[in-house]
This record gives sequence, C-alpha cells and structure tokens, in this order.
Amino acid sequence: MSLPSSVRLFEVGPRDGLQNEPGPIIATATKIEFIHRLAAAGMTHIEAASFVSPKWVPQMGDAAEVMAGISRRPGVVYSALTPNLRGLEGAIAAGVEEVAVFGAASEAFSQKNINCSVAESLKRFEPVLERAREANVRVRGYVSCVLGCPYEGQIAPAKVAEVSKALHDMGCYEVSLGDTIGTGTPLAAKRMVEAVSREIPVTQLAAHFHDTYGQALANLYAVMEEGIQVIDSATAGLGGCPYAKGASGNVASEDVLYLLEGLGIRTGIDLQAVIDTGYWITAELGRKPSSKVALAKGCVGA
Amino acid sequence: MSLPSSVRLFEVGPRDGLQNEPGPIIATATKIEFIHRLAAAGMTHIEAASFVSPKWVPQMGDAAEVMAGISRRPGVVYSALTPNLRGLEGAIAAGVEEVAVFGAASEAFSQKNINCSVAESLKRFEPVLERAREANVRVRGYVSCVLGCPYEGQIAPAKVAEVSKALHDMGCYEVSLGDTIGTGTPLAAKRMVEAVSREIPVTQLAAHFHDTYGQALANLYAVMEEGIQVIDSATAGLGGCPYAKGASGNVASEDVLYLLEGLGIRTGIDLQAVIDTGYWITAELGRKPSSKVALAKGCVGA
Repeated sequence: MSLPSSVRLFEVGPRDGLQNEPGPIIATATKIEFIHRLAAAGMTHIEAASFVSPKWVPQMGDAAEVMAGISRRPGVVYSALTPNLRGLEGAIAAGVEEVAVFGAASEAFSQKNINCSVAESLKRFEPVLERAREANVRVRGYVSCVLGCPYEGQIAPAKVAEVSKALHDMGCYEVSLGDTIGTGTPLAAKRMVEAVSREIPVTQLAAHFHDTYGQALANLYAVMEEGIQVIDSATAGLGGCPYAKGASGNVASEDVLYLLEGLGIRTGIDLQAVIDTGYWITAELGRKPSSKVALAKGCVGA
Repeated sequence: MSLPSSVRLFEVGPRDGLQNEPGPIIATATKIEFIHRLAAAGMTHIEAASFVSPKWVPQMGDAAEVMAGISRRPGVVYSALTPNLRGLEGAIAAGVEEVAVFGAASEAFSQKNINCSVAESLKRFEPVLERAREANVRVRGYVSCVLGCPYEGQIAPAKVAEVSKALHDMGCYEVSLGDTIGTGTPLAAKRMVEAVSREIPVTQLAAHFHDTYGQALANLYAVMEEGIQVIDSATAGLGGCPYAKGASGNVASEDVLYLLEGLGIRTGIDLQAVIDTGYWITAELGRKPSSKVALAKGCVGA
C-alpha cells in the first residue's frame, strides 16, 4: 500500500486526444509542434499518431507525415496505434519504434465496435505482434472498458485479467488498462488491478483513465497504492467528444502531474511547460484546456 | 485504513455555494426552493444561510426570511453561519438550531481577511459559543486554509490541529477542515487529518474541500481512509467565484455521491434527485452545473 517513488507518464494527447476532434482536420504542422512541445516539457513517451484508415479516423490520416516530421529527441519514445497489419507496415515504414494494439474487456463493446468477439479480435493481432517482433518494434496493448461498458455495465475483473494476459502472452511489453467511459471508482479500480496483477507483474501495467465522471484522479491514487507506476494522460484533457453534452476526455496530464508533485512522486516533467502547451493546443482548437490545474494556474509562457 | 460504511453529507450549497454569486441578488423564494429540493433528495444537513451584514455579503441579506420560509422536514438540520454575537442573535430569533463559526489555520489569511490574529478571532467567538450554549443551539467550527493559504503557501498540520482543538475546546461539536483554495493533495490531506485527530476524535471532524485543482475527490478518498465520515459539499459545485478565471467552488455533491456509491458507502441520498436539483439551481443562475457527474448523467426530472 505504499506509493511509487516515480511514475512514467504516457502522453496520449496527440493520438487519443485528437483522434475524435470535430471540426476541420488539424494541420500536420500543428500536430508536430504539439509533439515537440510535449517532448520539450519532459514527456518521454508520446503516442504521436494512429495508422488507421482515414475513412474511419480522418484526424489521423497524416500519421506518416507526422512521424516523418518529428525531430526526435533522444530518450523519447514516439509511438503509434496500429489496428492491423497494414497499419503496422505503415508505421514500420515511418520508422516508428513502438506501436499499440487493443482489445476490449467487454464482448458487447467488441461486437458493436469492431464486429467480432474479443477472442477473434485478439487472434487478428497475432500476425501484427509477429511482424512487429521481426521488425524489432515494441508493442503495447490496450484493454478498453476495464471498469465499465456502455452496453454491458460492470465488467468482471477476471475478464480484464484474461484479455490482459492474452495481450501479454502475445508479446505486449506493457498492458494499459482503459476506463474508456470513466465510470470507475477507486475500490473497483483497485480490485481490477489486483486481478490483473495476479497474471502480469504490476510493473508491466499502466492505468488509462478517462475523467467523464470526475473520478480519474481518485482512481489513479488508488491504483498507485496497488503498485501502478505508468499513467496514460492527455495534455489539456483532450479526447472524448469535446462538443457533446457531458462528454469528457482523458484525464488531463496537468492534473495528474499536480497530484504526483503533491505526493512527492518524481516524473521529470515540467508542469508549467505542460500547462502552457495545453493552452497552446486548445487555442489552436478554439477552446480552453479541460484541466482544472491549467485553469487555476493559468498560462505563463508560449 | 478501512473506509467508513456510511458518510454524512453536509450540504453547503445554499450558503457557501451562493454567498459569492455575482449578478443580481437571488430571490428568497429561489433559495427556499433550493433548500426544499435538497431536503427532498435526502440531504439531512443543509447550511441554509449566513447571518452576516448584508454590506459584506449581499447575497445572504435575507437570512432571516430564508430561515422563516423553510418548511422544516423532520430529521433535517438547517444551519447558518454566524460570524458574531449579533449574527447569532438573528439566527436564534429565526429559530436556527445549529450555527457555525470559523477560524483560519493561517495567520496571514486571518490578518488579511478579518484584520486580527487567529488567536484574537477565536477569542471573539467565546461569547458566541457561550450564548449558543445558553440558547441550546449547537455550534460547528470551520477551519479555513488547512491545506494551503494564498499568502503563506503551505500550512503546518500542527497549526491546523491547534486551531481545531481551540474550536473544539470552546464547545464546537464538529470541526470542518477547509481546503479553502483547493491546493491540497492526498498525502498532505492525510497528514493533516492525522495531526488533527490526535487532538479531536476523527468522528467529530469533517472534510470541506474545494475542487480548484481537481484534487478534491482524491483527497476525500484519502481522508476517508483516515476515518473521516462527514463531507461538506455543494450541489452543482456552487461556490468560489464562478465567473473568475480558473476559480472553482466546493466539491460537487453529485461527484462525491457518485464516488461514495461506487465505494459502497451509504448516504441515504438520491443522486439523481441531487443532479436534477443542481440543473434546476444553475438554470436559475444562468449556467450549467459544475459537476462532471451531472454533465455525464444529465437531468431527468424537474
């Protein structure tokens, strides 16, 4: 029940944050500058793009151009989502050194979203993992709906553990546990992490929580007590569907960093630089950061 | 380190929530209906008014009319803030059965706000407590700035314990620990409660946290692990200065209730009825609730 001394933030703003952004397609140069600013602030893991059909995710249609345009900073990993072999080939061609695949902990969610069972979806990733291994590309696994599903409601921790183990067994070096709809609360989050960490060392797990119900920081605090040391977050709380009623995105990197600083947990990241980056990117999108820390502290630079 | 099985919510929306509301004075009838709706939702402690000079807090100028207009529901305590003997006499005349007094844990805050030392401010409450005892009126104590002060920065837990003990020794039945500027984080909150509970039984303490930095729920979770069983909150997250940059009010009752429900902690309060009440009162004020749970779940009634 002791907290970690350091935590690695995995910044998902440029991908999970921007992928559903309504309105015009964000310029490639803006995405690249966003990534540069995040790296300059001290972020060491940045999910930069998604190699997916632009028919499905128009905002990510320039994944190859984004990856090609980044000035790589030593010590920073720039990763990309690759839902299939074609996406992986694109990512490899773009020089991506880490990719991510995903499964759902909910059968109903899997059926509604990708029209196949969870087991089938995992099966489809086998050639992706195999090809990634050949190409010496690390693979991260995402599991969605770990604390609730819009169709099934509650999800059994055992199901999350099963899907996580399958991704780990396939070769994912880390499994990121996604509270996709943000309905989780601290004890449920703890129990879920306990169940998964009976199958996979907790040091190979990450928490990926959305803040739709305002519970994300409480849940992160609770799972850090269980040993979680990697946290996914998005600068300015990007993500979700910003113009839909009540929708809310990923937990804001700024709010997580403020929490971690208060707990004396090291990250190596400059909070004010992230706040300024959040003001900059949301100004580009025509709004304010969705981060209470950013709103309270204000922008000082940029 | 085990969580309580039940928590009592102390609803401060009608007082702490509305007292700094800019714009026109809120109609007495609106305040009364707000209080009625809160009681109907299951709230058993409602801070309904402040008996303070209308010169200083114009929104609370109708305290006597509000108290007179409430249809008292059995089992519900309707309390009022009384900063001095004159306020207390007004409250007694209005039939108030519980009042509240306040001290700061920060010398600088006390000097800037009420132009006297913390010790002097406590001394001034002695006749208030004495008169309340005579009139058989219960007194609650608030301590502000327990996790940070806008002038002094960090506040020593020992100072919070000292002021809390003084209020308790004077006869306050419960001491509410206020993170007035919302800068606290979970370990600091735990340490502060630990320090205070060496002087006062933890069952006589309440947590009164503002959500300015988005940390309130994480902090509440942490202090419930320390034994806190009374939580102050405001429906719709009312309070603070709603039109000022980055300002944010009390933690929203809706978000606290969602957290408690998820943790299996009983409150006896109907979350959806509170959400609906939050939509109603904020519509009266011309805005939306400042509660992620309210925004995510939406209004179904009223």
